Amino acid sequence: MQAMEDKILTEGKVLPGGILKVGNFLNQQIDTGLLREIGLEIADLFKDEKPTKILTIESSGIALAAAAGMAMDIPMVFAKKHKSSNVDGQVYTVTIHSFTHGNDYQAVVSRDYLTAEDRVLLVDDFLASGNALAGLVDLVGQAGAEVVGAAVAIEKKFQGGGEALRKQGLRIEPLACIESMSDTGVTFCHL
Amino acid sequence: MQAMEDKILTEGKVLPGGILKVGNFLNQQIDTGLLREIGLEIADLFKDEKPTKILTIESSGIALAAAAGMAMDIPMVFAKKHKSSNVDGQVYTVTIHSFTHGNDYQAVVSRDYLTAEDRVLLVDDFLASGNALAGLVDLVGQAGAEVVGAAVAIEKKFQGGGEALRKQGLRIEPLACIESMSDTGVTFCHL
Repeated sequence: MQAMEDKILTEGKVLPGGILKVGNFLNQQIDTGLLREIGLEIADLFKDEKPTKILTIESSGIALAAAAGMAMDIPMVFAKKHKSSNVDGQVYTVTIHSFTHGNDYQAVVSRDYLTAEDRVLLVDDFLASGNALAGLVDLVGQAGAEVVGAAVAIEKKFQGGGEALRKQGLRIEPLACIESMSDTGVTFCHL
Repeated sequence: MQAMEDKILTEGKVLPGGILKVGNFLNQQIDTGLLREIGLEIADLFKDEKPTKILTIESSGIALAAAAGMAMDIPMVFAKKHKSSNVDGQVYTVTIHSFTHGNDYQAVVSRDYLTAEDRVLLVDDFLASGNALAGLVDLVGQAGAEVVGAAVAIEKKFQGGGEALRKQGLRIEPLACIESMSDTGVTFCHL
């Protein structure tokens, strides 16, 4: 998606440790014009899959999932993050390891919001190690529902998560895919 | 807003302790058709104020703020919640007491995302005790920016937060306002 690549080049900041800072247009502050375009692009990419629901994880996936849900006119659901596993039987839950923060957390969704009839499109802001996306795939599986694919705003290909998940058969559509990055700039994938 | 009141009557659940459960259309699962209407309604209510930015707080305000931001074509920013006050000097921060969870937390926004030139519209899902909204007003004040008003999806008038904030001069527009609620049902405010 050209608009996303342009935005990364003009406003993204590469920080030490393989971190791409997009806080001023995609995360803590969101460019809502770009957000609308993202929603329409995701809707177009996955329209033939006829998803019935969008699933993301708090917090930075929520705006993207809402935009995609509005564009496709289907409900969106977000998994909540909990530090402990002290949750009741009314939920699906999975343990996810965060490379960024170096800890584990629980991702939790009420059983009311995912059913065996659902065709679920996963949406998130970043795909790096792939742990969050793999966790969402697990939650959908617990519900007996089907994953139709995943849309991510930015894939950091050099962190390998996308390759591992694609090998398991998951269709992943990044709106921008980063081959490599350094102090001197960002190189996008040759898809 | 009729669509919001209808949804509360048909899908909301009153739980003990003054809690209104709206998790299946406004919180963990979001009805994106209703969300689009909410965005347009907020845009219409505040169009004369010409806000330059929308500010909310994670997580349940994000989708509403994104929808309003898309409808008004202005950026949205969300304050992050932290348990400790261990934050650096590059942020505005305020301590907020949560009645729901019985604890304090820090709401934090980067100084990059609120400036003295901003005219800020606050957006949140619930207005009850008013502590979260008062915290957002504080953050905007720290930036030297102006608050043009607040839009909340649901005001629980009987918890008093709205009255206190209006006495301080804040314009608050609830899309649904609840006068009282009990096992037998919900009564909306006579505005």
